[in-house]
Amino acid sequence: MTKTMSNKVVCLSGGVGGAKLLLGLQHVVTPGALTAVVNTGDDFDHLGLRICPDLDTALYTLSGMANPELGWGRRDETWHFMQTLTDLGGETWFRLGDRDLALHIQRTQHLKDGQTLEAFTRGVAERLHLPTTILPMTNDALRTRVVTDAGELDFQHYFVRLRCEPKLQAYRFDGVETARIAPAVSAALQQKLRAILIAPSNPYLSIDPILALSGMRELLRENGAPIIAVTPIIGGNAVKGPTAKILSELGKEISPLAIAAHYRDLIDGYVLDEKDSHLADLMNVPVAITNTLMQTLSDRERVAAVALQLADRVNC
Amino acid sequence: MTKTMSNKVVCLSGGVGGAKLLLGLQHVVTPGALTAVVNTGDDFDHLGLRICPDLDTALYTLSGMANPELGWGRRDETWHFMQTLTDLGGETWFRLGDRDLALHIQRTQHLKDGQTLEAFTRGVAERLHLPTTILPMTNDALRTRVVTDAGELDFQHYFVRLRCEPKLQAYRFDGVETARIAPAVSAALQQKLRAILIAPSNPYLSIDPILALSGMRELLRENGAPIIAVTPIIGGNAVKGPTAKILSELGKEISPLAIAAHYRDLIDGYVLDEKDSHLADLMNVPVAITNTLMQTLSDRERVAAVALQLADRVNC
Repeated sequence: MTKTMSNKVVCLSGGVGGAKLLLGLQHVVTPGALTAVVNTGDDFDHLGLRICPDLDTALYTLSGMANPELGWGRRDETWHFMQTLTDLGGETWFRLGDRDLALHIQRTQHLKDGQTLEAFTRGVAERLHLPTTILPMTNDALRTRVVTDAGELDFQHYFVRLRCEPKLQAYRFDGVETARIAPAVSAALQQKLRAILIAPSNPYLSIDPILALSGMRELLRENGAPIIAVTPIIGGNAVKGPTAKILSELGKEISPLAIAAHYRDLIDGYVLDEKDSHLADLMNVPVAITNTLMQTLSDRERVAAVALQLADRVNC
Repeated sequence: MTKTMSNKVVCLSGGVGGAKLLLGLQHVVTPGALTAVVNTGDDFDHLGLRICPDLDTALYTLSGMANPELGWGRRDETWHFMQTLTDLGGETWFRLGDRDLALHIQRTQHLKDGQTLEAFTRGVAERLHLPTTILPMTNDALRTRVVTDAGELDFQHYFVRLRCEPKLQAYRFDGVETARIAPAVSAALQQKLRAILIAPSNPYLSIDPILALSGMRELLRENGAPIIAVTPIIGGNAVKGPTAKILSELGKEISPLAIAAHYRDLIDGYVLDEKDSHLADLMNVPVAITNTLMQTLSDRERVAAVALQLADRVNC
């Protein structure tokens, strides 16, 4: 006999890599069963607008609006605002498409009017008829700052403006002492869950801000659902983004073993890439092995299903 | 012998009608000789952005960027932001084009950073290589409010959202007690001038906000240059916009006589439309008569030239 099952799943996620797993999960779970808890440490104010890159990537990806060529922003995008801003001598290192702008302007105004980021994000997801609940990890300001050989930088300045070129020495989360877990996140994590997944996002810059929130690790452990990490490392390299460079600059091994060690005391299972299957015996948690490179929708569904099956196996 | 001549001209202006005269003036005076003092009573904050309709109409018209079909906004405009805002359930009664948005976002940010509206507007005009100086009448908040049979309204809500449909009962300028004339406007009006023109804008809603600024009438009179009004009324009707409806609702005669009476103690001459030439003898100031309907660029140049010639005649 298995325990009474819940079909509800919570997934902690950063940006692009995380959103791929979220899309797979959205396809394999019952509509309404998935809640994404999204990093807001990358959020910043730019041109007077509040930009939330990871939340927007989740919204656009799960609603089928994501730009498949760029890997960020919206599909069918135009750039007339940006061209004109260039003509006016404005700051153009962070590219905002004409359609994308509407979300930032709406959000900035609603936050100014006193709405929480959580309420605003839920409202947008409802208008887009999303079957998934997308939640910011917090309604408060927690901002990732990086210390580099080019000085201390806001995350987006490091990540987008300087394309991660400065050598990373350290990182910290401004506001972490006072930022509170968003109420809907607490509520989601107090439900009976089938699984809590950690998406294959950057463990240091995308997942750690979530885990750093006061009370988050306790909420995750006390839920009792198995916590499964999906590997962001495939055969000694990160799939996308600066994870490998960052690990190397921080003196970490670029290996699933280092990621699992980073998540120790938290995870109950690890989805390992088939290229790293030789490491299975060295992992200190149960593993599932699959091709974790999520290029197609069916890849995403498969990885999502493998992660959930691992959770069910661990839970037996 | 004429007095020592200046070639400098100041023109007080509202939106679309005023900008037509400004364009004509820009073509007939020496580059650099024209200063436009523009109404900012219509300015408002919308979607978190500072919108300055009359300043923008002047900037776009004088730089050749104005939208010839719409009569407002920019040419070659696209509306993807607005379409997306509609999808998100945002406020869409005030239409902002993708290119137009860049100016509002830049301005909002610069004002928030402490730049004056005057400095920002001059900066934009410089980037557009305009031969004309465009100045807001004030850097402070002076906001036109209208009392109507549908209640008291912000100007743009009356003018754009409700398309001037409510019956106008009264109007007032919030902040007029504290708003100061922009320093560059004071400086422009303390120079020796060839003429001060009053554009064919709505005398009540576009020109009166300028004249209502503390010290403005004194500055205009003390300059000593002839003050010439170009008629906004042609044969018993306003060329464009709600001027005729407003005059009628305010119980005023729709006639150049009523306009000249409104500007009494201020103007030294009046450019009358040829359709109203029978009223010339009833005007209490010298008149010049021409076709004042400004459909083509050469119409605009002609009306500008006639107004300046009247100024020169009055000044002899």
